[in-house]
Amino acid sequence: MSETVNVSNVTRRTVRQLADGREIIYYDERDVPRNAVDTRELPARAGASELRYDPLRDEWIAVATHRQTRTFLPSKGECPLCPSTPEHATEVPEHDYDVVVFENRFPSFAAMPPVAASRSASALSPARPGVGRCEVVCFTADHNANFADLPPSRVRTVIDALADRTQAIGELPGVEQVFCFENRGIEIGVTLDHPHGQIYGYPFVTPYTRAMLAAARRHLPRSLMADIIAAELVGPRVVAANDDWVAYVPAAARWPFEVHVVCRRQVPDLPGLSDTERDAFGPLYLEVLRRLDAVFGIPMPYVAAWHQAPVRVDRELAWLFLQLYSIRRAPGKLKYLAGSESAMGAFVNDIAPEEAARLLREGASSEG
Amino acid sequence: MSETVNVSNVTRRTVRQLADGREIIYYDERDVPRNAVDTRELPARAGASELRYDPLRDEWIAVATHRQTRTFLPSKGECPLCPSTPEHATEVPEHDYDVVVFENRFPSFAAMPPVAASRSASALSPARPGVGRCEVVCFTADHNANFADLPPSRVRTVIDALADRTQAIGELPGVEQVFCFENRGIEIGVTLDHPHGQIYGYPFVTPYTRAMLAAARRHLPRSLMADIIAAELVGPRVVAANDDWVAYVPAAARWPFEVHVVCRRQVPDLPGLSDTERDAFGPLYLEVLRRLDAVFGIPMPYVAAWHQAPVRVDRELAWLFLQLYSIRRAPGKLKYLAGSESAMGAFVNDIAPEEAARLLREGASSEG
Repeated sequence: MSETVNVSNVTRRTVRQLADGREIIYYDERDVPRNAVDTRELPARAGASELRYDPLRDEWIAVATHRQTRTFLPSKGECPLCPSTPEHATEVPEHDYDVVVFENRFPSFAAMPPVAASRSASALSPARPGVGRCEVVCFTADHNANFADLPPSRVRTVIDALADRTQAIGELPGVEQVFCFENRGIEIGVTLDHPHGQIYGYPFVTPYTRAMLAAARRHLPRSLMADIIAAELVGPRVVAANDDWVAYVPAAARWPFEVHVVCRRQVPDLPGLSDTERDAFGPLYLEVLRRLDAVFGIPMPYVAAWHQAPVRVDRELAWLFLQLYSIRRAPGKLKYLAGSESAMGAFVNDIAPEEAARLLREGASSEG
Repeated sequence: MSETVNVSNVTRRTVRQLADGREIIYYDERDVPRNAVDTRELPARAGASELRYDPLRDEWIAVATHRQTRTFLPSKGECPLCPSTPEHATEVPEHDYDVVVFENRFPSFAAMPPVAASRSASALSPARPGVGRCEVVCFTADHNANFADLPPSRVRTVIDALADRTQAIGELPGVEQVFCFENRGIEIGVTLDHPHGQIYGYPFVTPYTRAMLAAARRHLPRSLMADIIAAELVGPRVVAANDDWVAYVPAAARWPFEVHVVCRRQVPDLPGLSDTERDAFGPLYLEVLRRLDAVFGIPMPYVAAWHQAPVRVDRELAWLFLQLYSIRRAPGKLKYLAGSESAMGAFVNDIAPEEAARLLREGASSEG
């Protein structure tokens, strides 16, 4: 029931269950038993969302009404992502952990019947169950830490966990794409303070991934990302680089501060990364995060989004990269997605990509 | 120099210039001379933005560095959109106005050389000048009004002004699409309080318009929007309707409260609307806005976005409609575009479209 297996040469996995049947998966850096039992009395799990097809733009939208009641900025003592204590039982039954992943209690997608049968089915805008998977990834038991504070060895554990979950979720029925991401900062709507990320297993290939695959296909027989990397490496927008990864502000950045951390080798997704590449990611990414926070001397709200290949199609066209971007354009000012961006998809960026790269390079030393 | 002409059977237009050469255009409901002179000493106009091509997603991004210094939440006495007084000269030299339009002092697009020559030109990510036009539309001289407070006759004047500007901007060199919109509410980043909208003349067809045109093309020989309207009219999501317009929550709404106000007749853009359609829009739209504000009993932040046909292409495929949406999902909670929406383009909506329609229908009487 709680067998521990190695998922890499440094990371061990133990799978357990929460009181309502959700899976919880511990990823540990050393041998430690994971036998704690979830003693809470939990309500039955919420159902899945419903997918609606938007015929105007040829996209699927998830309608997840049960998420309206999700936990919203609890006080620190009520944090559901901290380890459990004798006084306070949380989502993590153990009293400590390294990295832990569990199924989201308020999932946008799940392998469950929808909460409500569709009331909108029509030939033009069909509905179907929001089959899929949503998981929470806790990066550390320390409630007050930030990802940028983690040691490189912990980033390696996180990468092993994300790779392992990408593989497992990709094998679930109906899942077409796996998305690992971190939203950080109340400015972008983060509802839980504890350092954590999320994993979505979508029952469709997402719109921006479709756009990127189409662009990559048009560029064949050359590899679009290989050509971009080669051009960026000799250009003015590189922020940091090592033998396996390069981090640069893209020439057409949409956001005030946007960095693409790209694997130099074509790999479709995180499971495809070698041990060497996994080890090399942490030091580089931590440097980029420290530089980001140093630009204005305040913690930046950001989204860190792993772009991975779809599960079944176009895997040879995709190229793994992390898109990191902040909506902060000045110490007291945010970039909002108003009419032009959110109604037309047309982005206006107030900071030149070369200037953003210069600020990121000069704003902080690599020592943080 | 300040000749007044009729742009419809109820609206008169007078074109003038501001001190730095920008155009200002008055749209009046009665005969009134517009001869006031802008006496301010203004700095030279900022240049245009630079367009950058994003090869990853096949989209153009505007880099508008001069916008960083734009006016940010001035106090009421400093409002640049109020009429001028003897003590305070604003962007509008007259001491009163009905509807007035002027070129944005901090434009994302303009018929000017870019601020800086491109530093990013490359075969993969070419740059070009951000040719185009950005205008501000003041709906009323009353600083404290909201669009929903305007009388229907004023909404008619606004529509006449937007139609007239759409026609004129579409004839400017390089403009491919004209976008009229209102951002309302500090929650979505509105930097000026005074009730106003904006007009963008883009030098490209925007990404979402391209997606909608492609979907409409695939639906030929039937009209996609005609089929959608017919389905919605007999469904559970209609919010309001009259002989010329229908307002409904779309079956696959992306936003907690989203309403499409659609012209029943296929018209490519605002200039194509008949007098009858222009007159009929105001009462219906004002009812929808009042219902929106009544859902939670507080003014809702919203984007109101006119989807119009491109200037040169696919005009027979396009169908004019207003997309109105709010990011507020509960009195104390906003919908943020975090990882799934802004990195993958995959929307999760916490409110079922049928429930949103019910709240909009029941939340307020049509009397406001």
